[in-house]
Amino acid sequence: MEDNKRRKVTIKDIAKEVGISPTAVSLILNNKPCRIAQEKKSLVREVAKQRNYIVNQAAKSLATKKSYMLALILPDIENTFFSSLAKQIENRCRREGYSLIIASSDEQESNDRQLLRVLESRGVDGIFLIMSSESFENSKMLMKELDLLTMPYVMVDRTFPDFDCSRVRFDHEQGGYLATKYLLEQGHTKIGCVFKEIGSGRSRLDGYLRALKEFHIPVKKEYLQAGDYRMESGYRAAGYLLLTDVTAIFLCNDMMTLGFLKKLYEEKLQVPKDYSIVSYDDSLQNYLLEIELTTVVQDITMIAEQACQMMFQKFTKEEIEKKEIILMPKLQVRTSVKNIIKK
Amino acid sequence: MEDNKRRKVTIKDIAKEVGISPTAVSLILNNKPCRIAQEKKSLVREVAKQRNYIVNQAAKSLATKKSYMLALILPDIENTFFSSLAKQIENRCRREGYSLIIASSDEQESNDRQLLRVLESRGVDGIFLIMSSESFENSKMLMKELDLLTMPYVMVDRTFPDFDCSRVRFDHEQGGYLATKYLLEQGHTKIGCVFKEIGSGRSRLDGYLRALKEFHIPVKKEYLQAGDYRMESGYRAAGYLLLTDVTAIFLCNDMMTLGFLKKLYEEKLQVPKDYSIVSYDDSLQNYLLEIELTTVVQDITMIAEQACQMMFQKFTKEEIEKKEIILMPKLQVRTSVKNIIKK
Repeated sequence: MEDNKRRKVTIKDIAKEVGISPTAVSLILNNKPCRIAQEKKSLVREVAKQRNYIVNQAAKSLATKKSYMLALILPDIENTFFSSLAKQIENRCRREGYSLIIASSDEQESNDRQLLRVLESRGVDGIFLIMSSESFENSKMLMKELDLLTMPYVMVDRTFPDFDCSRVRFDHEQGGYLATKYLLEQGHTKIGCVFKEIGSGRSRLDGYLRALKEFHIPVKKEYLQAGDYRMESGYRAAGYLLLTDVTAIFLCNDMMTLGFLKKLYEEKLQVPKDYSIVSYDDSLQNYLLEIELTTVVQDITMIAEQACQMMFQKFTKEEIEKKEIILMPKLQVRTSVKNIIKK
Repeated sequence: MEDNKRRKVTIKDIAKEVGISPTAVSLILNNKPCRIAQEKKSLVREVAKQRNYIVNQAAKSLATKKSYMLALILPDIENTFFSSLAKQIENRCRREGYSLIIASSDEQESNDRQLLRVLESRGVDGIFLIMSSESFENSKMLMKELDLLTMPYVMVDRTFPDFDCSRVRFDHEQGGYLATKYLLEQGHTKIGCVFKEIGSGRSRLDGYLRALKEFHIPVKKEYLQAGDYRMESGYRAAGYLLLTDVTAIFLCNDMMTLGFLKKLYEEKLQVPKDYSIVSYDDSLQNYLLEIELTTVVQDITMIAEQACQMMFQKFTKEEIEKKEIILMPKLQVRTSVKNIIKK
């Protein structure tokens, strides 16, 4: 059977078959009160079922203003951090009786705004937004669009510091601090940092700087290498840092760490024998056969849970309990850091 | 500003402001012919823009029957093969002026059916379906649901052999054949196979069997290990195969290969020195520092392109050119296979 030739069964068809008005059929199928005999009601439901009548949600949502569908806009579906987060949010929504649809902005600010519009116009009940890095850098346009939204939304993972909306994120500065403090405690003082100049990467660098300050270690400019969270930039950063006298490196995400490790492998250098490494994300544990990475871990299940709770509160309560939730990352210690304290 | 307190501007609001009927406003904003002076029309559009009027797509789609939104149902958003495929389909749709929304079945047959219903009722223009493995095993229910769909759909990657619908997939039997033939050509005759008992994994095993037959090598039952495409099953399979005299192994997906390699690493065995390996998917190239995997490659961009072309043909033509497209995988030769032909 050709899939696009079939015609939908309508309320009119059912009305004709049962011999009552389309309005009455509509009332019955939407469980609205109406003066129709119980047998007729049962018959209408039976016919609707037999003929595979599909409630037109588009029409129904116009009336009920509820679609039981939520949307998630994310920056890049191929990025494992976001795809894991999407899966957790989806699981949570499904348990609550909501379908989740996902759309990707491809890290473009214009797509964030266009998708907000499209999803609002499709009548989803609420939107989870992990904005693109372009929006992060260029906040005004998106803020304006968000102010005009007529439905509940929650900003997740990437948030504007001063923008008043429901939001949940991790404390990236604290993550950078934990990573660097651990390296300092193991005796390292010559610590490189591969970071990103904006957003979470910048905050992680701030944490690195705070830890150095706390340990009275001066910052050396040649130890700092900016990257873009992609593997190639980690590989390039290694090219520079291997020319310095660093003994340890804190890398602000796993993809850059992967690039860094590739360079080390090419140069026949080992972790932690030649260099100690702390990474961020804990997404590589399954892939690296030879290295057990010490890493900052963000609890994806927890951020998904908090984001969903915020959303569901918006449906049931007048005022939500908290507008901003900040989650603390943790350090997962494994064997990629050598203790170099002389005994 | 609280995000869920704001009220949508309606057609009625605009009608009141401009001083014409709501029906007239609706006709103007939907570019339908109506007897209203050109200045009034311009004024309506101006007011709509200023007041940030959003076309109610739910209502509009009831009339125009077109949403410019397509949906993709996939089995698992965390699986990198599917997330890459989703990204390629999305890119292609965006270029064509369509938004893509993605929903995951979490490999559950009941979710496949529920999502088809929900997405149809939300008025998407068409659906790309990569069915769950449960539906694959248990085809009747899904087939019935698909027969009842009133909109165009294309089955992607996982298809039923005898079910008449638009579909595009890879030739998995050919992939298994290419992998095994290559190992045979390099002199291996004791070749293990780690497969999956249903779907693509079963077809890949069939290709392995065809290659052995062609080279007149009898099948040894202890060389065959069933897995479930997950890492743990590859690790377990290694436990068995290392007890046999195999010199080479063909693994039917990358995750099982990763598990297999973990076991080899624990046993201090090397690729290709101790064992030759051919894998499937080519998703590990960025992650493995020490091994360059010879692997069967499926061109994700090409399957996305073909699926989208099929969909767009359904919108523009009465008859689509082909109902089934089968794409050939390729073998990417790297260094994980040792040539053991005595010279």
